Amino acid sequence: MSDAAPQYVFTFGEHADPCALVHLLGMKGASLAEMVRLGLPVPPGFTLSAEACRAWWAAGDTIPRALRDQVRAALRALEAETGARLGDPDNPLIFSVRSGAAVTLPEMMDTVLNLGLNDQTVLGLAARHGDARFAWDAYRRLLQMYADVVMGLRTDVLDQLLERKKEGEGAYAESELSDRALMELVGIFQHKIFEYGGRAFPQDPEAQLWESIEAVFRSWNNRRAVDFRNINQIPHDLGTAVTVQVMVFGNRGERSATGVAYTRDPNSGAPQLFGEWLATAQGEDVVRGMFAPQPLNMASGAYDAEETMEHALPEAYAELARIRGVLERHYRDMQYVEFTVEDGRLWMLQTRAGKRSPEAEVRLAVDMVADGLIDRAEAIRRVSTRSVEKLMHPRIDPDAHREVLAQGLGASPGAATGRLVFTAEAATEAAGRGDGVILVRRETSPEDVQGMLRSQGILTTRGGMTSHAAVVARGMSKPCIVGCRGLDLDLDAGIVQVGERQLHVGDIITIDGSTGLVMDGAVGTIKPDASDELERLMSWVDEFRRLRVRTNADTVRDCLTARDFGAEGIGLCRTEHMFFEDERIYAVREMILAADEDGRRAALARILPMQRGDFIGIFEVMAGLPVTIRLLDPPLHEFLVSRHEDIETMATRLGVPYTQLEARYRALSETNPMLGHRGCRLGITIPEIYEMQVRAILEAACEVTRRGVTVHPEIMIPLVADAREVELLRDVITSVADEVIAEQRTPVAYQVGSMIELPRACFVADAIAKSVDFFSIGTNDLTQTTFGMSRDDCGRFLPLYVEMGILPGDPFVTIDPVVRELVTMATEKGRGVKPGLTVGICGEHGGEARTIRFCHDLGLDYVSCSPFRIPVARLAAAQAALAAEGDEA
Amino acid sequence: MSDAAPQYVFTFGEHADPCALVHLLGMKGASLAEMVRLGLPVPPGFTLSAEACRAWWAAGDTIPRALRDQVRAALRALEAETGARLGDPDNPLIFSVRSGAAVTLPEMMDTVLNLGLNDQTVLGLAARHGDARFAWDAYRRLLQMYADVVMGLRTDVLDQLLERKKEGEGAYAESELSDRALMELVGIFQHKIFEYGGRAFPQDPEAQLWESIEAVFRSWNNRRAVDFRNINQIPHDLGTAVTVQVMVFGNRGERSATGVAYTRDPNSGAPQLFGEWLATAQGEDVVRGMFAPQPLNMASGAYDAEETMEHALPEAYAELARIRGVLERHYRDMQYVEFTVEDGRLWMLQTRAGKRSPEAEVRLAVDMVADGLIDRAEAIRRVSTRSVEKLMHPRIDPDAHREVLAQGLGASPGAATGRLVFTAEAATEAAGRGDGVILVRRETSPEDVQGMLRSQGILTTRGGMTSHAAVVARGMSKPCIVGCRGLDLDLDAGIVQVGERQLHVGDIITIDGSTGLVMDGAVGTIKPDASDELERLMSWVDEFRRLRVRTNADTVRDCLTARDFGAEGIGLCRTEHMFFEDERIYAVREMILAADEDGRRAALARILPMQRGDFIGIFEVMAGLPVTIRLLDPPLHEFLVSRHEDIETMATRLGVPYTQLEARYRALSETNPMLGHRGCRLGITIPEIYEMQVRAILEAACEVTRRGVTVHPEIMIPLVADAREVELLRDVITSVADEVIAEQRTPVAYQVGSMIELPRACFVADAIAKSVDFFSIGTNDLTQTTFGMSRDDCGRFLPLYVEMGILPGDPFVTIDPVVRELVTMATEKGRGVKPGLTVGICGEHGGEARTIRFCHDLGLDYVSCSPFRIPVARLAAAQAALAAEGDEA
Repeated sequence: MSDAAPQYVFTFGEHADPCALVHLLGMKGASLAEMVRLGLPVPPGFTLSAEACRAWWAAGDTIPRALRDQVRAALRALEAETGARLGDPDNPLIFSVRSGAAVTLPEMMDTVLNLGLNDQTVLGLAARHGDARFAWDAYRRLLQMYADVVMGLRTDVLDQLLERKKEGEGAYAESELSDRALMELVGIFQHKIFEYGGRAFPQDPEAQLWESIEAVFRSWNNRRAVDFRNINQIPHDLGTAVTVQVMVFGNRGERSATGVAYTRDPNSGAPQLFGEWLATAQGEDVVRGMFAPQPLNMASGAYDAEETMEHALPEAYAELARIRGVLERHYRDMQYVEFTVEDGRLWMLQTRAGKRSPEAEVRLAVDMVADGLIDRAEAIRRVSTRSVEKLMHPRIDPDAHREVLAQGLGASPGAATGRLVFTAEAATEAAGRGDGVILVRRETSPEDVQGMLRSQGILTTRGGMTSHAAVVARGMSKPCIVGCRGLDLDLDAGIVQVGERQLHVGDIITIDGSTGLVMDGAVGTIKPDASDELERLMSWVDEFRRLRVRTNADTVRDCLTARDFGAEGIGLCRTEHMFFEDERIYAVREMILAADEDGRRAALARILPMQRGDFIGIFEVMAGLPVTIRLLDPPLHEFLVSRHEDIETMATRLGVPYTQLEARYRALSETNPMLGHRGCRLGITIPEIYEMQVRAILEAACEVTRRGVTVHPEIMIPLVADAREVELLRDVITSVADEVIAEQRTPVAYQVGSMIELPRACFVADAIAKSVDFFSIGTNDLTQTTFGMSRDDCGRFLPLYVEMGILPGDPFVTIDPVVRELVTMATEKGRGVKPGLTVGICGEHGGEARTIRFCHDLGLDYVSCSPFRIPVARLAAAQAALAAEGDEA
Repeated sequence: MSDAAPQYVFTFGEHADPCALVHLLGMKGASLAEMVRLGLPVPPGFTLSAEACRAWWAAGDTIPRALRDQVRAALRALEAETGARLGDPDNPLIFSVRSGAAVTLPEMMDTVLNLGLNDQTVLGLAARHGDARFAWDAYRRLLQMYADVVMGLRTDVLDQLLERKKEGEGAYAESELSDRALMELVGIFQHKIFEYGGRAFPQDPEAQLWESIEAVFRSWNNRRAVDFRNINQIPHDLGTAVTVQVMVFGNRGERSATGVAYTRDPNSGAPQLFGEWLATAQGEDVVRGMFAPQPLNMASGAYDAEETMEHALPEAYAELARIRGVLERHYRDMQYVEFTVEDGRLWMLQTRAGKRSPEAEVRLAVDMVADGLIDRAEAIRRVSTRSVEKLMHPRIDPDAHREVLAQGLGASPGAATGRLVFTAEAATEAAGRGDGVILVRRETSPEDVQGMLRSQGILTTRGGMTSHAAVVARGMSKPCIVGCRGLDLDLDAGIVQVGERQLHVGDIITIDGSTGLVMDGAVGTIKPDASDELERLMSWVDEFRRLRVRTNADTVRDCLTARDFGAEGIGLCRTEHMFFEDERIYAVREMILAADEDGRRAALARILPMQRGDFIGIFEVMAGLPVTIRLLDPPLHEFLVSRHEDIETMATRLGVPYTQLEARYRALSETNPMLGHRGCRLGITIPEIYEMQVRAILEAACEVTRRGVTVHPEIMIPLVADAREVELLRDVITSVADEVIAEQRTPVAYQVGSMIELPRACFVADAIAKSVDFFSIGTNDLTQTTFGMSRDDCGRFLPLYVEMGILPGDPFVTIDPVVRELVTMATEKGRGVKPGLTVGICGEHGGEARTIRFCHDLGLDYVSCSPFRIPVARLAAAQAALAAEGDEA
């Protein structure tokens, strides 16, 4: 039987390419074997593969004969190599048993150190090293770990005995216990283990070995590990490898130590060793945080060179510095290593890719290109879009004191501090006085936009990740928290109730739009520089991506920001925000409330020059780039305020009775405004609005063209459900546009396109395509209608849906599979009748990495996102292109 | 050339089966030829085919040589047959030229009578008949028609001359003009024609013939005809046939006459001749309504036998009665005929299927089965669903005086009269006093349902065909008008402004839910009996249909009505209406406003027995039939009233502060409730509601089962977007249901199903089907989400969309093609994984004929509609089955 069995046991160095065997050896086993191949100092040992673990399960949790034979053979080889022998009272083989799967299960599984010790071999170890204290300390540690990991006893039982002993001895730390005290503790521990475990600690080292191996196998299925795998969707049937390795002792006197290090600074990315060490200790002491370690070197934050390992153990440190180079050249990435120094000699116990901050991630990638370790494509693959996103915004200083009041959904990242205000008007007033404010609302509406612009941050008690507040705030790149249900607003009293606490208008709070935390008072923030490394990286991504990146921008300010970040045009210019500015809102309201077409046309004539001015500004900034302008989309009642005073003001301005105006306001209100009289339905029923807008666009385009600036206006029809809508409105648009061009005798090449944002439009996209030059897919509304789920109202159930796993995530953040099907259908039908049709995405999804990958794969022309997400989108587009290349290769 | 040309000209009687040539001969030409074949008296003639018309176009609007030759040959044959000759001064051939396409274009195209007359032949005609007045009258008529139809002059030019002549002669009618006066008029007309037409009236009869033929060809493309074809989607390239026929003269003295008749009474369907006649007149006099005709017989409504043709021209009448039988036996349908009596002899000039009232349509079909003229299948095909729908409701008496105040959308047919009330409470109060009321609201909501139940009719100023008011009213079969924008409500003042007029609370109005008319005061209505004939017809339809017909019913009353009409189960029992009844609304509000789950469960425990009682009642009525119960669907805030007083009442009942309750009300309100926290989203976030409902359903089912009644409860989960929702809720439902069954020790076979009413559900229907026993497709919400169009808000643009032809019709009435694609997708995906899956439709479309045909073709199991639409649905289902059979054959 054992002849036919697979190879379960792999001795370090036996294979030329251990990394290729990571599925068998686990990450730890593979890295140890790899370091041996690199000629680095690694204590000898061998690894039982994950396949061995599965064979153990298959055999009903018993060690199969073949595995037992292979382990014994490896052990004999180890004994031959080291000269030590298992259970040899003179030169006992002391070893560790560690878990190590092919996937990261951080501190989920177990480890046993100092195996091979028993009442005899402890004496041999003491004698051999001339250090009884060290030997008894090792034995004491073995008993504690064995009781915990192998025998499953509660750790506090032995911990209490240790504490009592320390008290009795007047010792502060274990290291102050004498060899005698430790020896006594070993006796007490064995007694207690027998008492609680129902059996004695096994004195037979081979029994210790088998039991430890089985304990590690078993730990694959402990609760923590199972939960972690469930959350991270890791299969449960992989199993873990087990590494058996000869012990080196960091606790063997003053020239011994243990430590961990990064090959570069994981916070800044600076190219120097960064780490911690602890003299006279074993690895678990550092990893488990039981003792405060010291900086490895000055670069690791030492105050005094004397505390560093560089100073205390200079040869071992130099060796570590040399190994740093070897590892980086080999792995072409920053490594995290664990090491032990035994009597001045450095031993490597682990290496793996190190965790890093966003800043470090970018710097590492860029530096490594400079170092020749990786190429640009690899650098782009290495930097996550999340990291770049984080770098774009100020953050709470991690060292700052904070008192958290409540938590909502982090809807637009960044930190902001300001005084509480409850209305957009108050925000504008306070901003006029130079006060920074946080605007707190139940939810926001377009009439709050001016106030939002003037606030440092926005906080709403309702709404989800794509509520009005969230979308607008991201567009403005303002920190924003939404759906913060812990706050109870009493707008009339000007009070926010947070649990027992009451906040008042004017009180200062700080919000963190990344984490959703609301904090009391002013909490310190830091604004990272847009580092040289990030700029260098961004200069590379454009070589790789195919997908264009446009921006959603409504103002000159947005356009300037967007161009700075590399926008290649405007994918969505919403005209409605312009309607709220300053005096023109009154003209807009007059237009809406006009009794007839003449009245509307008179009001629109007053809006026309203002809109034209807006477009002139935008066209000048976006010189040479396409500008997609969406004709008026929201239902008209969004421009009205239904408060008593506002109606009164308007009634006075318009010279009509209050009651008549109030009736008109009521008549305009809608049950489901999202599904109401909006989008092209306005254009069809009240054509004069679109006529004015098209005139403003074309007059602006002519004006700017005469100034020598190239303009590419793309006029977009929103909320299309049927091809006939587009046919009719295309006629309206072209007739006005061509009229303006003729009047002004200035040729302007404009395009007409359709939003695709309703399921029906996706089904009839072929018919729609016949009348348009481009499609812009509005994934926000498409998601809303496909799901029958309003982004303003989903806050009551969507978070629970995600939590319960009904949906894998918020479909307003990452595009839903069915919405993908619809987008694919629309694109294929559209291009089926018009192969050159330009297709882009302008929903919130346009700045999200997985959606961008989808858009790349589908062959879309561009994505459009808010200005501050442009770097993220550019990077994601490059990664999508590289990944697609990889998939094809 | 002429050898190769097709046959353009067809002489009457030449072909054995003229009806088969209707595409060439047109309906009029074919009917004349058919009557000749039947041996009926028809003046001889021939028809130029529609192909001739197309050849004329193809030749650049000139008569092709072959056509000219064939017409001349036919003319020579006609001359030979009659002995008269074209232009013969002694025996002139006088003829008519009439249009007649293969499709009905009512009075769209032109006719010229009395052709062949000129300054010579008029004398011959006079001499031959010994009647100068008649001859000059015929010539005068020819000139008028020729000037109009052939020469395109304005008709008022000659009309004025005629009037002046009548004045000059002191004549009241043309028939009072003397031969001299007519002769003078002929001279004046010819002068005027030359003056205005720029050329003389052609004296050459053959020239008259060609010009008239070409004029009729041309009239195919006059504006009225083109518009009519556009509206009715008739191809423009068919062309019209032209019939040339020897004239018979109804204006030739007292024993001459003209008339029209139906072979049965078109209003009642009674099997007797019904028509009108006019002595000494030509057909145009009757058709154009220039003179008041008289009843043909007593059955046609004569007051006095002397005025009837039966009395005046008994032989001709007897001949007509004989022909009636011939035609009905031949055509197997009621015919409309036109005839002329010349000097006592009857001539037939036209026969076609006659228009009929709904009552007549049903009676005809049923009587003709008894007469052996048609079989039952044909009877079913003959009766339109619209007719049956009309028969189900009381109607405005067509003879009643009415003053129309405004017009809205006729949303639920039937007429109702009552006093104006503006609130549901007032309606309930007035009903308590025994007053009939019309409830007038801007729009209705579930809290109005009780008041609606107690009103005679409902009138709203907002909303469309599937707004809440419309849907609920149809469900109740209450007359209802929605979207009546001409009314301006001032609720506070209790006033409705209609133009200049003010109506007050308590004023009486009448509404017609079929036409959408709002009328002042009480207007008389008639309620047709459910005739024996209709009952007989309905007893036949069930032999033919495959599709089952269920009902949407929420109350015992609805269920009783529905069973009367033949419902085969409940397809949709909405549980929310039950929540509004009487005291329980307070328990419902307590449940909604409860601070925690315990509070909710306490309130739900009080609702449970009431819900159980509802279900017991319904199960008993629906004994043996399936009952699909939809778990709670609407957002919870629909159960709250946000008026100050109501909040106060609830605050007192609940013992909580007003401000706290008001805040809770506000927090529950939604921006887009249709897309909000409703349907299964409630079931998932607040499972105790569905648990209570399932318990109530199963406890009721057990109770009724024990009483010996068979129950088939089908529990339905609303607003499903993803399969996981159904999986989770199925577990909740089955665990409660099985618990109840175990508790009660009564086996009940229940099913669990899913509403399919969101686009996303259609795409993932395969996954959903795995967890359910049935699908119920909710086409209302599916249409709303597919279009992104709220049925409550579409009133502002949808009517215009239909009017402008953007949409062919209201997609809430007839299922939209894209919605069909989605329904097809859902059905196919669902049955793909579960072949036996029951699939039905429960939206408003379930009672609409074209949708029912679609459901039949797709192989659905049932449609579900409101009780009063069940006969319509049963008929439509039978028609669908017959039509599908026909398509297959």
